[in-house]
Amino acid sequence: MSECILNLLPLHEGEREEFEAIAPDAVHVYAGRSTATPEQIASATVIFGWPRPEAMGGAASLRWFQSMWAGTDEYAGKLPEGVLFTSSSGSNSRSVAEHMLTSLLAVCRRLPAYRDSQRAHLWKDEGAMKTILGASVLVVGAGHVGSDFAKLCQGLGARTIGLKRTASGPIEGFDQVRTMDELDALLPQADVVALALPHSPQTVRLMNRGRIARMKDDAILINAGRGSVLDQDALVEAMRASRLWGAALDVTDPEPLPPDSPLWDVPNLLLTPHVAGGMRLEITRRKCVEMAQENLRRYLAGEKLVNQVL
Amino acid sequence: MSECILNLLPLHEGEREEFEAIAPDAVHVYAGRSTATPEQIASATVIFGWPRPEAMGGAASLRWFQSMWAGTDEYAGKLPEGVLFTSSSGSNSRSVAEHMLTSLLAVCRRLPAYRDSQRAHLWKDEGAMKTILGASVLVVGAGHVGSDFAKLCQGLGARTIGLKRTASGPIEGFDQVRTMDELDALLPQADVVALALPHSPQTVRLMNRGRIARMKDDAILINAGRGSVLDQDALVEAMRASRLWGAALDVTDPEPLPPDSPLWDVPNLLLTPHVAGGMRLEITRRKCVEMAQENLRRYLAGEKLVNQVL
Repeated sequence: MSECILNLLPLHEGEREEFEAIAPDAVHVYAGRSTATPEQIASATVIFGWPRPEAMGGAASLRWFQSMWAGTDEYAGKLPEGVLFTSSSGSNSRSVAEHMLTSLLAVCRRLPAYRDSQRAHLWKDEGAMKTILGASVLVVGAGHVGSDFAKLCQGLGARTIGLKRTASGPIEGFDQVRTMDELDALLPQADVVALALPHSPQTVRLMNRGRIARMKDDAILINAGRGSVLDQDALVEAMRASRLWGAALDVTDPEPLPPDSPLWDVPNLLLTPHVAGGMRLEITRRKCVEMAQENLRRYLAGEKLVNQVL
Repeated sequence: MSECILNLLPLHEGEREEFEAIAPDAVHVYAGRSTATPEQIASATVIFGWPRPEAMGGAASLRWFQSMWAGTDEYAGKLPEGVLFTSSSGSNSRSVAEHMLTSLLAVCRRLPAYRDSQRAHLWKDEGAMKTILGASVLVVGAGHVGSDFAKLCQGLGARTIGLKRTASGPIEGFDQVRTMDELDALLPQADVVALALPHSPQTVRLMNRGRIARMKDDAILINAGRGSVLDQDALVEAMRASRLWGAALDVTDPEPLPPDSPLWDVPNLLLTPHVAGGMRLEITRRKCVEMAQENLRRYLAGEKLVNQVL
C-alpha cells in the first residue's frame, strides 16, 4: 500500500527533496498548519508536524503521526484508534535548557530589578549577587531537557544531581543520578532546584508547600516542565515571607496566567510565557526535521520508531 | 624598618590571622573605608583595600598601596610620590564575565521584553530567539575578563576569537587570538561583539559609528569594560534603524547615565548600572584577600609584586 505523507513541518530549501529521497515511492503533500485542507488530512497515511488536534478526528487513512513537539498532551485522546504516535521529544531540549540557564543566571544577578530600574531611567545598585560557580544544582527530571540543562551548568562550574523515577546508570551532565524518593533529603542542600518534569498524575504538585519549605533560604527555584508540578500559591507565600533568593517560571497553571495572579509581581521572580521550547531556534526546527526523516527511514524499513508514544 | 599595615579589606573570620601569620613582625590595623582615621592613614606604611582617593594625600608614611579594585583610574594622580601601587586586577573577572554571559543570553532570549510584559501582567510571545551554540563571539580585549568570558562561551558551545594589542601565544578561552588591527576585518563575521577594554587614549570611541556599521544586522553588542570605548549615539541610531539583534551595556559614558539619555529606551538593549564587577560575589572578595596576601608575602621577601601599576 503506497504512502501519502502530509508534511506540515516548517521546511527550508532543499528539505522537501531530502524527504522525497527517503521515500521516493510515496506521495508527498506539503502544507501549513492552517492551510492543510480536510481532504488532505483525510487521505494522509502519514502526518508530520503540528496539525490542529481537533482536525485529527478526520484523519481516516492515518497510520502514523509524528508530532513536531516534545510534549504530547494536546493530542491525547484526539487521534483515531490504532494510529502509531511518535513525538519529537528531545528536539527542543537545548532551547529549553538554554532558557533555564538564562533565567537562572538572570535571577542570580537580579536582572528583573535592573530591567525595572532601566525602564524608570534609574541608575540603582541592587547589591549582592550569586554565581553558578560551585553551586549545587538539583535537577528534578533527568530526561533530555534535564540532562541538557545539567550539561550547561556543569560547563559553567556547577555540581549537578539528577533525579529519576527509577535507578539507572550515569546520565550525561550529571555528577550524580539519584531516585525521586531522595528528593526530600536532597532539597535542603541544593542552591538551585530545577523542575524539568512532564505533566502526569505522579508529578502534579510534586513541588508542594512542604518541599518548598525544605529549600535553603537563599536557593533559586526554576520550573520549565509543566506548571501543574508546582504549588504556585505556596511559592508566592514563601517568597513574600522573604524565603528563597529568587525564582524563574516558564510554565504556569493555568496558561495563560490570569492577569490577577499574584505570581506576576513577586520580587526577583522572572516569568516567561512558556517560550523556552517551541520553534524559536533554527537548531530546534532542524532537529525536528531530522527526527522525522530518521523515523520515516525506520517506518519504511519496518524498524522500531524513535520516541513512540502510542 | 617595621611595617604598619592598614587593612581596609572586608575580612571574614580567620582572615586577620592569615595576614598576621604572613607578617608576624608588622603592626596590623583593621578599619573600614569610612572608619579609617586620618591618623591611621598617616602612619600606615602599607594600605590594603579601598580608601577614599582624596584621603590618600595624607598618607605620609605610605610605601605600598594595594587597591581592592581591578581598575586603577580613581587613584590616578592621588597617591604620594614614589608609592608602589598594585591593583587587584583579575579578582572580579569571573563576576564580570558571568554578568556579560548573563546579559548576552538574556538578550538572545528577549528577556528585557518578557520582563516588561510580566510587569504589565501580559502573557505575550516575542517570537524567534538566538542561541549561543555555534555562535561566533569576538572579544575585544583579551585580558582577565575577556579570557574568562570566552571560557564561559566556549563551555556553552560558542567559537571565540580574542583581540589583543600585540601578538601573543594562545590565551585560555580563545579558539584564536588575533591583533586589534584585524578588528575591522573580523567585525562582519561576528554574531557577538563583546568589549572588555579599559579606558585609555587608544580605546576611547574605539567602537565608533563605522565599526558598528560593519557588524551583522542580527549581531549582539556587549560592553562591560568602560563606557568611553563605545559611541553611544551611534549605537542608539543603529538600533533605532533596526540594526543589531540587541545589546547589553553595563558601563556608560557618563556614569550614572543621565535620566534623559536615549539609551534607556532602546528595544532589546539591556542596561545595568556598572554592577558586573565590584564586591558582589563572595568569590571576588576572597580572591582580593588572597591577592593581598600573596603580594604581602612577596613584598616582605623583596620579590616583584603581582599587578604592579606604579
